[in-house]
Amino acid sequence: MITVLAGGVGAARLLRGMVRAVPASDVTAIVNTADDVVLHGLHVSPDLDTVTYTLAEAGNPETGWGLAGETWQAMDALERLGGHAWFRLGDRDLGTHLHRTGRLAEGAGLAAVTAEIAAAWGLELTLLPMTEDRVATMVTLARCDEAREESSEQTSEQASREVGFQEYFVRLGHSVAVESVRFDGAQESLPGPGVLDALADADVVVIAPSNPIVSIGPLLAVPGIAEALRSRRADTVAVSPIVAGAALKGPADRLMRELGHEASVVGVARLYRDLAATLVVDTADAGLADAVEAEGMACVVTDTIMSSAEVAADLSRRILEVSR
Amino acid sequence: MITVLAGGVGAARLLRGMVRAVPASDVTAIVNTADDVVLHGLHVSPDLDTVTYTLAEAGNPETGWGLAGETWQAMDALERLGGHAWFRLGDRDLGTHLHRTGRLAEGAGLAAVTAEIAAAWGLELTLLPMTEDRVATMVTLARCDEAREESSEQTSEQASREVGFQEYFVRLGHSVAVESVRFDGAQESLPGPGVLDALADADVVVIAPSNPIVSIGPLLAVPGIAEALRSRRADTVAVSPIVAGAALKGPADRLMRELGHEASVVGVARLYRDLAATLVVDTADAGLADAVEAEGMACVVTDTIMSSAEVAADLSRRILEVSR
Repeated sequence: MITVLAGGVGAARLLRGMVRAVPASDVTAIVNTADDVVLHGLHVSPDLDTVTYTLAEAGNPETGWGLAGETWQAMDALERLGGHAWFRLGDRDLGTHLHRTGRLAEGAGLAAVTAEIAAAWGLELTLLPMTEDRVATMVTLARCDEAREESSEQTSEQASREVGFQEYFVRLGHSVAVESVRFDGAQESLPGPGVLDALADADVVVIAPSNPIVSIGPLLAVPGIAEALRSRRADTVAVSPIVAGAALKGPADRLMRELGHEASVVGVARLYRDLAATLVVDTADAGLADAVEAEGMACVVTDTIMSSAEVAADLSRRILEVSR
Repeated sequence: MITVLAGGVGAARLLRGMVRAVPASDVTAIVNTADDVVLHGLHVSPDLDTVTYTLAEAGNPETGWGLAGETWQAMDALERLGGHAWFRLGDRDLGTHLHRTGRLAEGAGLAAVTAEIAAAWGLELTLLPMTEDRVATMVTLARCDEAREESSEQTSEQASREVGFQEYFVRLGHSVAVESVRFDGAQESLPGPGVLDALADADVVVIAPSNPIVSIGPLLAVPGIAEALRSRRADTVAVSPIVAGAALKGPADRLMRELGHEASVVGVARLYRDLAATLVVDTADAGLADAVEAEGMACVVTDTIMSSAEVAADLSRRILEVSR
């Protein structure tokens, strides 16, 4: 049994390799839901969908999100009406959100709905939302220095600079400086059905190469998950999402720097050393292996840039070797 | 100023003629919203959309609902996931529902959203939802005689046979017998913005050839509308939706019979005689003109089967002549 802590694109790519390295039914992914968002009344779960579509080999390889061969009639119509179309929902993708929203309204839990959708796509791995409660990543944008001097009412001003994760990530294209991140609702949330068991029962726990702040961070903010993970430290392998000081995709490097972390495999080691015994880093970072080990983690150097399912499968096999 | 009480397809066809007979900006339609439904989290307003799409010359002439040249990617995807797809929402049509739902969630009223959508389609007539409050047509299906004898717990059994309007109309294809109809929430509802003024200020009020029970009925159930209409009786012209004892489309004839009315222009006259001075009937019903007049309404005989916009415009001109 392999349990993978997962965000979106990076995790999806690793999982695509993992189900080639071991039987898919041995793999469980605990997936971030803190960037779920209600758009136009529909419950959208971007990370769950990215993992599902990628594993179903139905994902759009160019964007990393959405479905291949998608059409955009609904968004085009929405735009003609003057609606907000910055979060692009493809027509086929809308089927997923319509179904999820309808089932949730009928009283089904997100875990059950996620399992239904995965089954409909023929997936044999287990996808678990980290929680069925509402947890929302909220991002406070940094203000520029001028505004800082002029501002007097600090609290309300800070509140006005706080945006939801998708507004930061998609609408603003994560091209703005961030002052802080919080996970609204996390303290009151419970781990989703099966989550703690998946951590307790796993032979190996893997922290996928997802954004440590906004993809893995929310999982650790759900009471019980970090504790369960710490108790499995010896069997936990993290894969660095930072390669040669940069994120392969998304704002992980920038966010780490802005929030006071070093944007390097050493910075990743400092975030994960209490949770995982081993950090897998890319060959590009071989020179930092000693520095990683100085943080108290074993460091494994291998190819981590998953340019194909085969590379991802090799990486997965290496992770499993390391953990034995 | 012409104010038209409107349901879906029949009203849309009449309005399409009316805006050819007079400047569109002189026309206001007060539209039924009691068959609005939340589907998969989306607020769908079937009658408002049918009128909008038809007036925009974008409607599907074969079905009478939805958009011409529609695609169905979202519904196909929903069906593959095992979702309820009996209410077919086309991809372009979804743009409307996404926009409406999003705007309502932002706090906009249904009247404002309706005006925005109409403006985006270039419509110059005014479309007013009958109310911005939730009013829902609920249909109690008749039980068969066997079940009647066996049943003991009448109230809960009746409740279990009550379905929402779309479930009756679309899912069951209105091919089942009906015992009763009620408009849930109507008593607590208020007329939508502009509705009472549109009735008070109109030179002519027209009751469109819509289903008297489930399209015009809900408008009359909103407190204030029937009273306002009665005070305009002398200037109000109704067009019979029943031609030669049958509805041109939908279950108006069947519903009238099942609920104890005569499915004829005479039955329509009995429903409308307190509200309208004049009933327009089709030439097929010329023989019943005296019977209509015996109910206390002036009866005008003309072509009411709106097979084209030109016929609808002729009918509209006739209505306006009659009212002068």
